[in-house]
Order: sequence, then structure tokens, then C-alpha cells
Amino acid sequence: MDSMVIVERQAQQTSSRILYLVMDGLGDIPRDDGLTPLAAAHKPNLDRLAAEGCTGRFDPVGPGITPGSGPGHLGLFGYDPTEYEIGRGVLSAVGIDFPLRPGDVAARFNFCTLDAQGNIADRRAGRISTEENRWLVVRLRDVPPPPGMEIFVETESEHRGVLVLRGEGLSPRVADTDPQATGVPPLAVRALDDASRRTANAVAVFVNTAMRLLAKEAKANGLLLRGFDSLPTIPSMSQRFKLRPVCIAGYPMYRGLARLVGMDVPAAPPSLSDFAAATKEQRDGHDFFFVHVKYTDRAGEDGDFDRKRSVVEEVDRMLPALLDPGFEVVVVTADHSTPALHRAHSWHPVPALAWSPGRVFRDGVTTFSEAACIAGGLGRMALRYLITEALAASGKLAKFGA
Amino acid sequence: MDSMVIVERQAQQTSSRILYLVMDGLGDIPRDDGLTPLAAAHKPNLDRLAAEGCTGRFDPVGPGITPGSGPGHLGLFGYDPTEYEIGRGVLSAVGIDFPLRPGDVAARFNFCTLDAQGNIADRRAGRISTEENRWLVVRLRDVPPPPGMEIFVETESEHRGVLVLRGEGLSPRVADTDPQATGVPPLAVRALDDASRRTANAVAVFVNTAMRLLAKEAKANGLLLRGFDSLPTIPSMSQRFKLRPVCIAGYPMYRGLARLVGMDVPAAPPSLSDFAAATKEQRDGHDFFFVHVKYTDRAGEDGDFDRKRSVVEEVDRMLPALLDPGFEVVVVTADHSTPALHRAHSWHPVPALAWSPGRVFRDGVTTFSEAACIAGGLGRMALRYLITEALAASGKLAKFGA
Repeated sequence: MDSMVIVERQAQQTSSRILYLVMDGLGDIPRDDGLTPLAAAHKPNLDRLAAEGCTGRFDPVGPGITPGSGPGHLGLFGYDPTEYEIGRGVLSAVGIDFPLRPGDVAARFNFCTLDAQGNIADRRAGRISTEENRWLVVRLRDVPPPPGMEIFVETESEHRGVLVLRGEGLSPRVADTDPQATGVPPLAVRALDDASRRTANAVAVFVNTAMRLLAKEAKANGLLLRGFDSLPTIPSMSQRFKLRPVCIAGYPMYRGLARLVGMDVPAAPPSLSDFAAATKEQRDGHDFFFVHVKYTDRAGEDGDFDRKRSVVEEVDRMLPALLDPGFEVVVVTADHSTPALHRAHSWHPVPALAWSPGRVFRDGVTTFSEAACIAGGLGRMALRYLITEALAASGKLAKFGA
Repeated sequence: MDSMVIVERQAQQTSSRILYLVMDGLGDIPRDDGLTPLAAAHKPNLDRLAAEGCTGRFDPVGPGITPGSGPGHLGLFGYDPTEYEIGRGVLSAVGIDFPLRPGDVAARFNFCTLDAQGNIADRRAGRISTEENRWLVVRLRDVPPPPGMEIFVETESEHRGVLVLRGEGLSPRVADTDPQATGVPPLAVRALDDASRRTANAVAVFVNTAMRLLAKEAKANGLLLRGFDSLPTIPSMSQRFKLRPVCIAGYPMYRGLARLVGMDVPAAPPSLSDFAAATKEQRDGHDFFFVHVKYTDRAGEDGDFDRKRSVVEEVDRMLPALLDPGFEVVVVTADHSTPALHRAHSWHPVPALAWSPGRVFRDGVTTFSEAACIAGGLGRMALRYLITEALAASGKLAKFGA
């Protein structure tokens, strides 16, 4: 049996506090001089936590698997990402703070450019502005829904949007209409099982009407849908671990992921310099503080080694203020690796440190880097087990068995 | 599929011998100077085994989980502790060498002090002496059992005792009467399912009569019961691994745990200096020698770093004599960690060494300590897999597949 079952059974509420500082996409691979952005960064505060704590490396899903943001965060929150899938549509909906309800079917859509033959010329409609997207969305809201159904059309950003269907008896087993290729027409809306026929029909009617409304647009004269899904049923962190978790994050997607596991999600701090104050404000009534910094991942996606290093340094400078409320346990890690060399998510395990003096095993590692963590006392394991070290060190796991 | 299934399938009996030297609660965390009792100990013999062998760290149950003695030993013996639970009552019964039979229902009891209102004033009856406990138990044995049933009342130590019910159709699904709190009365005896009604009734009658017999006692005027359980059905080590195991242990609980997995359990050696001779005596007819030293755990529980170190040194001095009969494989490890700083069991992985020249991989580790074992060739894994290294190195696992 997976030992997480025992973790859940032995979990107990205590007053001690856990800070989970997540630098998105932090993990990296060395460039020619042997350094990663994390290794190259001047980060005395993070190094001190590593030196006083225990370090290791964690696979967000499993060896070799490159995770999206959904699986990566499920792992961080102590969930087996292979058990709960969060479809693209749901991720986009929660990512724009859309109040998705159980049973709603959500899909991500792209505005696209179709040529005279109806083939896709540009899957992203020339990356139209978010402003233009909003105008188009207002027009698409005129498409009448079928009887007994509601349809929501929402802007995400640039060419991206979210379609949500609400009503009785909907089912998300609907195939993508996005062929992920140009020079071919969009795929027909198609139900993947009998239970999804009605949903697919409603989507097909919507798409046809929408295409007519968009026909005269220069760039955004078509729609591509993908990632139909409904909210997964995920037991909350409070149910599983008796935690009272709160999310401090600037980006909607991470706030949405936090909400999926039952975290409190107060207003987003306007910028990185506000994270410490925003965290301190949530001090009362919470014992698990998920603090999410997006900019490391952005820099990695842009292939910008130096900017990624700078973000780490900025986080390091913010650390004393962030730690000011006092935490029994501090964990610093990532949801996945985004090597600057790759300009994309990767499968490499993420470095992690767990700090809790007198509680975690103080290993010999004295700096926080991917390479240093290889010798760490936590070893290498699946990311979902990292939270167990935090729970144990904060006294939140009772002894198992007599 | 858990690869242990294959281990069981490929197990074969050979004449080679495995010594499993277990220092209870050996694992620790470093104090300020970076040393643990194991690291600080002068232990040339253990260091030699580590230098010639392969080392690593093992989680008794899983990351973050603090095990009791039952789960810790199941892991040592190659069992998944999440699959077999050994209730407090059974552990207490086997811990006093009570010859528990399949179907018996055992519960741990405390003598307690009730105030004039019948509320619990002291859950441990002022920790009465074991001697006084024995006198009270003699009186409780006068309580007549229901027809067709036998009741055994046994002293454990101080305020602790064991109640055993024997008869047809008993079931252990009976709720604790110990509320684990003071200022409230004991809980009523209550069946947790229909099959346990008759058992619960018998317990209720016993408790009522016992309370009357104890009513005039100054301190021990009440009884609290918990951990009702029956012997679990555990396949023996002989069935699973084709081993002929024997237990050399001074403490009843560990002898009882060994018996649960089918070990031979000869008389307890009177003191640590007798362990080598007691082991040698079992040389014929056995191929797995579980040698259990309790005193490391005791020192850890007492928060006595220096005494824990001394016990390690004492074991080290005993080692040449213990190894004298000749073993193809020697494993040295623990059932769980008991950091002196914590004065309690903890979740930290236990250090382990496996020695078998020319058989196990000789890693670069040259001393036996928690920190050194981080770099060990065995890595970090669940404790139940440690036995597979011993089985493999002793030639007891045939090749799997063509």
C-alpha cells in the first residue's frame, strides 16, 4: 500500500506553520561552466537554509516524465499526479478565476486564421491582442445556448480563451477540434462516447454560429477547441492532511490549482515585493503557506539564464521578510524544471531543501543547487513525498502503530 | 507489481547464513557538532564492516512516517508494514510472552484513578509499582468469565496490563474505553460491528465487576482499555523466503514480534555479553539470525546521547564474538530512529550496512554513520527491501526469467 495512506491516517492538526516556497520551473541543467542559474546565483539566505537543513531531489511525476503545471503542483501538494488529471480546459478556467462548478464542461479555445479554403493558416490568429480578444468574446456571447444550458465565453490572453458549458447531464468526453497543424481544416466536433453526444451537439452548434459571426475578421476568423474537461474530484489538503492551507500567488493558474485542493486564496499580491506582507497577513488561521513565484519559469521559457539567476537573487533578498512571521518548517523547491537551454519544461528532478532546526536531519550540503542536492539527506524520490518531511518535522504526523 | 512478489517466488534455501544485527532506535540526527551517537562512537569493527560492505538508508514504513516497534520490525523482516497491523493489545500480549492463540482478543489496560464523580483524575493511577499491579491482577482474576469463555488478566508493568478473552466466535472490533483525557469518565464498552457484540458484552461485564473490586483502592480504582485486537495472519518468513529464522533478543516484545513471523525463539540471553554465545548455540538448523539490542533505543528515549554512543561501542566490542560462527552476510541496522534530541521515535530513515565480501557492492563509505550512509550504494528505500540484498548476497534468490 502506498505509505501516503498512512500519512493521511496519522495526520493531526497542530499550531506549527509550514512555509512552502515554490519557484516555478526552478530546476535547470548546467551550462558549459558547470553552473545552473540556481548554482550561479548569489543567494546567502537560501544557502543558509540549505546548510542548516536537509536537501534532496524530487521527481514531480516520475523519472523521465516532463510535467505540465497541473501535475507538478499536484505533486507539490502531496497528490499522486497520475491519479488526478486536470484537463487543459479546467486549467484555463481556474487560471482566469472562472468560478467553475462540478459538472461544468470547460475547453480551451484559440482564435485562429483560416484561409479561403477553410484551412488553418495560423493557429494563433497572429497572436491578436488581449484587447481584441475581449471585443471578439463580447460578440461570441451573443450565440444563444441550447435550452436548459448556459454557455460562457471568456478571454484568457492574446489568442486564448475559455469556453464553459453548464447544465444537467453534460459530459466532457468531446474530441479536440484543434488538429495542432496548419494547412488542414479544423476537426469536426465529435463525441468520444454516447454520454457526451448532447454536449458535443451543443458545442458543434456554438462553433458553427461562432464561425459565422467571425467570418469577416481579418485574423481571428476561426476557432479551435481542445482539452474538454470537468472539475476533477480531489480530496482537499484539509481532508487529507488536516492542514489549513493558504495560497500566496500572483498568477491565476496557480491560484486556481491551489483552489482545487481546497486552499484559501486571498487577493494576489501586486508584485514580488508584496509577497512577504501578503504572507504575513494570512498568519492567523493557517498552517500551510504555499508561496508561488512564477518568474523563474518565465526566464527559463525565454532561455534567459541570467534573468533566471536574477529572479533567484531577488527571491533570496526577499527571504528574510518572508520568514519574518516565523515558521517551524520551511521548504524551498519547484513544481518542475525549466532549463534555460531547453526553453521548456523538462523531466529533470527538482532541487529541494527542508529547513527545521533540530527536526530534519542536517546533511552535509551547504549550498542550494541541483548538483549539491544530489548528496542531500532526502535522497531522490517522488515529489509528493516531500510534504511528508514537512508534516513530520512540524509535528503533524502521529506515530504509526504500537 | 511490488517486486517483493518476485523475491518470494525466486527464494531458495541454501546453507549460507545471514546475521541481522538490529540496534533498536539506532538512527539519530546530528547535534551542533554535526555528530550523532553512531557517528561519535569508537566502533572499529562496525566501521570495518561498512568499509568492506555496502551502506544506505531505509524508511521503516515510508518517508515522514514515525513507526512504532511493530511496523519497524515488520519492515526489517521484509514485510510491508502498511499491510499488517499489529494492535496494541496483541503487542502487549506478545510483549509479556503471553501464549496468544489465533482468535483470542487482547487489549491493553491501564489502572487509573477515578475521582468521586467517576471522572478520570490520573490515566496512570500515579504509576503504581509493578508489584502493586501484580496484587491487583490476582484479585481481578476472580472475575468469573461468561460461559464458554476464558479471561486472562496479566501484569505488564507499573500501571499497565493485558486482558485476553478466549473462546469461540470472538471479534476484536471493540472501541477503546480510554478517552485519552482526564476530567471525563471512561468511555462505555462498545461493539464497533455486529460480530463484536458478544465480545463487547463480555468485556463490559468484566469491566463492571472489576471496577467494583477496585472501588476501595486509593489510586488504582479504575480500568481503561484500548487497542483490542487479535493475532494477525502473517505468512511466515519460512513460507515467504524459505528461511529458517531464529531470534536472539532479551526483550519480550521483540521476541513476540519474531514469533509472529514464525521465527524460532529460544530463551532470552540474560545480558548483552551473552548474545554471542546465545547466537552461536543456534548455529545449526538456522540460516537467518535476528539479533536484537534494545539499549540504543532506551538511551535515545532518555535523551542520553553519551549512553547511546556507549551502547554502540559495547555492541562493537561484542561484534568479533558475535561473528565468530561465520556468516556469509551481515546486516547492521535499526527498526526506526530514536534521536536523543527528540527522546522519542522519529521518521528519519535508518542507516544500514550490508557486508558480504565479493557479493555486495563495496561502495566508498568507510565508516558507519547516518551521514556517511547518505553516499552509500544501497541508496534510500523502504526498509522491507533491505532483506532482499541479504537474500541475494547469500545466494538465496534464483535468477528471475530466462
